[in-house]
Amino acid sequence: VAICFVSANIFVDEERNRLIVGEKYMRFGSLVVLTKQEKKANRNLMAIKKAEIKEAMETHQFPPSMHFFQAKRLIEDSEVFRILRKMPKGAALHIHEFSMASVEWLVKNVTYRPHCYFCITPKGLFQFKFADPAPQKLRSRECTEWVSLEDHRKKSNASVFDKRLLSMFSMVTKNPHSIYPNQDAVRTEFQNILFSMSGLVTHAPVFKDYIFQGLKEFHQDNVFFLEIRTRLSPVYELNGTVHNGLWVVKAYQEVVKNFQKTHRGFMGLRLIFSDSRSRSVAIVADSVRKAMGLQYHFPGIMAGFDLVGREDTGRSLYSYREALTIPVKHRIKLPYFFHAGETDWYGTSIDGNLVDAVILNATRIGHGFALTKHPLVRVYSQEKDIPVEVCPISNQVMKLVADLRNHPAASLMASGHPMVISSDHPALFGAKGLSYDFYEVFMGIAGNKADLRTLKLLVTNSIKYSSVVKSEKDFLMKVWWIKWNQFIEKLAQRRR
Amino acid sequence: VAICFVSANIFVDEERNRLIVGEKYMRFGSLVVLTKQEKKANRNLMAIKKAEIKEAMETHQFPPSMHFFQAKRLIEDSEVFRILRKMPKGAALHIHEFSMASVEWLVKNVTYRPHCYFCITPKGLFQFKFADPAPQKLRSRECTEWVSLEDHRKKSNASVFDKRLLSMFSMVTKNPHSIYPNQDAVRTEFQNILFSMSGLVTHAPVFKDYIFQGLKEFHQDNVFFLEIRTRLSPVYELNGTVHNGLWVVKAYQEVVKNFQKTHRGFMGLRLIFSDSRSRSVAIVADSVRKAMGLQYHFPGIMAGFDLVGREDTGRSLYSYREALTIPVKHRIKLPYFFHAGETDWYGTSIDGNLVDAVILNATRIGHGFALTKHPLVRVYSQEKDIPVEVCPISNQVMKLVADLRNHPAASLMASGHPMVISSDHPALFGAKGLSYDFYEVFMGIAGNKADLRTLKLLVTNSIKYSSVVKSEKDFLMKVWWIKWNQFIEKLAQRRR
Ligand SMILES: [Zn+2]
Ligand SMILES: [Zn+2]
Repeated sequence: VAICFVSANIFVDEERNRLIVGEKYMRFGSLVVLTKQEKKANRNLMAIKKAEIKEAMETHQFPPSMHFFQAKRLIEDSEVFRILRKMPKGAALHIHEFSMASVEWLVKNVTYRPHCYFCITPKGLFQFKFADPAPQKLRSRECTEWVSLEDHRKKSNASVFDKRLLSMFSMVTKNPHSIYPNQDAVRTEFQNILFSMSGLVTHAPVFKDYIFQGLKEFHQDNVFFLEIRTRLSPVYELNGTVHNGLWVVKAYQEVVKNFQKTHRGFMGLRLIFSDSRSRSVAIVADSVRKAMGLQYHFPGIMAGFDLVGREDTGRSLYSYREALTIPVKHRIKLPYFFHAGETDWYGTSIDGNLVDAVILNATRIGHGFALTKHPLVRVYSQEKDIPVEVCPISNQVMKLVADLRNHPAASLMASGHPMVISSDHPALFGAKGLSYDFYEVFMGIAGNKADLRTLKLLVTNSIKYSSVVKSEKDFLMKVWWIKWNQFIEKLAQRRR
Repeated sequence: VAICFVSANIFVDEERNRLIVGEKYMRFGSLVVLTKQEKKANRNLMAIKKAEIKEAMETHQFPPSMHFFQAKRLIEDSEVFRILRKMPKGAALHIHEFSMASVEWLVKNVTYRPHCYFCITPKGLFQFKFADPAPQKLRSRECTEWVSLEDHRKKSNASVFDKRLLSMFSMVTKNPHSIYPNQDAVRTEFQNILFSMSGLVTHAPVFKDYIFQGLKEFHQDNVFFLEIRTRLSPVYELNGTVHNGLWVVKAYQEVVKNFQKTHRGFMGLRLIFSDSRSRSVAIVADSVRKAMGLQYHFPGIMAGFDLVGREDTGRSLYSYREALTIPVKHRIKLPYFFHAGETDWYGTSIDGNLVDAVILNATRIGHGFALTKHPLVRVYSQEKDIPVEVCPISNQVMKLVADLRNHPAASLMASGHPMVISSDHPALFGAKGLSYDFYEVFMGIAGNKADLRTLKLLVTNSIKYSSVVKSEKDFLMKVWWIKWNQFIEKLAQRRR
């Protein structure tokens, strides 16, 4: 950068333009070349975007600056959002397996299946179980009495009960600021929901249907490929038989096969085997070895390994270095997709996970929220083309950031940092697929000037940074390109 | 940065250390050299800081992550805060004139003076006026009836009335999130307070006492120099006589002289003449010329020029370029201290003010909140040593950022960006001096590892980046150094 001191108006303009143009070409997506048709589509898109931002500035109701739970209806009224929903978004690379299918489906479909029982734990949480014969009473300290949902619905007001279940399975509330005063409150609720869901979604037939339903919702949102973080938790049958992780991997393969029969545009999914960052080094070492084995036996569906769970209270990646360097010691490549830097803390081992992630050779970084506080890791990951998986709504709901215009990804986008957009746990947040998160990024985080170039790069990045091999990437890109052109055609022809 | 791929544990540690140490030496303050005594003091300080952060992580009550209005009591209970209060903080470089003295003093002292009248405007706002004889009834559309405060207090419950005044003059509330749902709500309240205060503080004798009281509160907080943004608004006498800006400048000089008689350690103040960024180019051009004249006639007290008022609804610096390039055209140096980038918007003329500010050769940047979204301006201002004046509590109260660990200054500190800490409008926020803002920075923004080096650089920066000439800077530094060593002595001797 070389800027002269002001000496006359002409210099002001000249130097100013130099700075403005310089920053323009650093911005995420600015170097994307648009076709003639894309340019036409872009003009229509930007006219709508500008009008919506102008209105928001007047009404003081700008969805990205509001909590998603309060902004959701406004977002759904947005024309930009409707366009984003139709946009072929490529792949969702940061999704957790039991947060994919909407809570409504869980309540209206799953809890209405036969042999479903519930009990209330001493902490007041719902626990579920499918069983035939009925689970024994007083079977554990956890639950004193198992009640049949069918019986309970007959005896009580089923619609009131269902509403209770719906709100229990969702984090959505009208007053998020008072209900979730801090990160700990929101994390507790999050854990409680996953606990309550577990008895339902780990029942073998439900498990397969849940994944199927999840794929359906992403497919409806014009997402055609997924990479799913999975614990490969045991799955149980009605009679109590328990299946292991191997069964789960195969179940995924089966579900995808079935799904593709009726959803031709869907390109598949891959799994990122994940363990919890609260476990011992020995257990994680076992999981790493298991991941290596799965990677070897199921190279088509297994993408790599991650450590999940709340970073603020979990162990550092560094503390697992003995476990995480096992593959490299055996000269085996196990790709890592670490959650790292999903925190507001700075100068701790928590944000330090970002250093550990790149040192441990991560392929992508989950969230990377603290990345702007680590200038060398930032430069290093940009040079090495290690993208961050940005999940704005998740970060907001988990209270990492309130106004999404403040999301650190804005700064990353300003310097063209590699990234993809994902939705983490959409079902729990009342979102679906990727469109809500794309809306937040396009309208809020990427700034007013972000246009179709930004979107095109985000979407092509989701394919570029997916874990599939080069030839498959090319194929995904081709398939996406056809869909994209159809989308562009319509957007270009649109009357304002 | 050069990091090899992991090939064994030893490499993990080696490369990791390289990255960690590299980032350490980039951090704000990391290159500050500490004396033996300072090192001792630092150990004591860091032991207390660590203990307080550890406790906060356990209790989930971390003041910088909470709204200041709710965190204030917790901050005052903090030992770190008590140390920061005693720390000689040098200069406050970003302060507005009518937000210096506490609201309690305004109510308990000023509104109890004789000949004080109030009325309620059609909008329901308090308006005040000192007058003798009493102001005429129905004197303007604005106010229907002027009531004597003395009479009113006799007739009604004076303590209830005073409480009403206290809460009216302050933005503080128990429920900031519901009272101020968005930036517009909080800005409206802010403007209302300044409107209500104006009739009191622009009364000539009150004006001088207000400044005196403001200096006293900063001095009590161990701040010994101030640079005050002032509109040089007309000041009135009891009989209706009105004084102009020249009188105000002289009044400042007089107040400082008197203040120094009783407060020997106080080193003085300088004024940054400011106009509003909602006015026409012609009016601002007049103000620039006025600033040039004042600068010429009062070189000791006049520091330069700024444009104030809310950026989101104001005009861009660029739109004033005709006015702001007048000095350079006349080959006259008028230092600029522009408020710029005090916004969450990105890709607008608002955050674009940052580009304009450096192009217009700003000496310092007020807030610069959007700076992390402008990578070239960021690099340029770091190279040219143009500091940002960071006012964390102000940014939080004005709803630019909720959790202060998320303040963009954290990222700026990570790369050693030049900055000073100030408090903007402390009286309106229920703060005093600079210590509350220093607490937020030291505990929240600068991260857990920030230590006495960070504080020492922040404080010495306040002198280094002040507008005084080199010789005066050296003198300020000497005076500060004596106070600092006394502070260090006590902190080093402290028993844990
Ligand atoms: Zn995640
Ligand atoms: Zn200010």
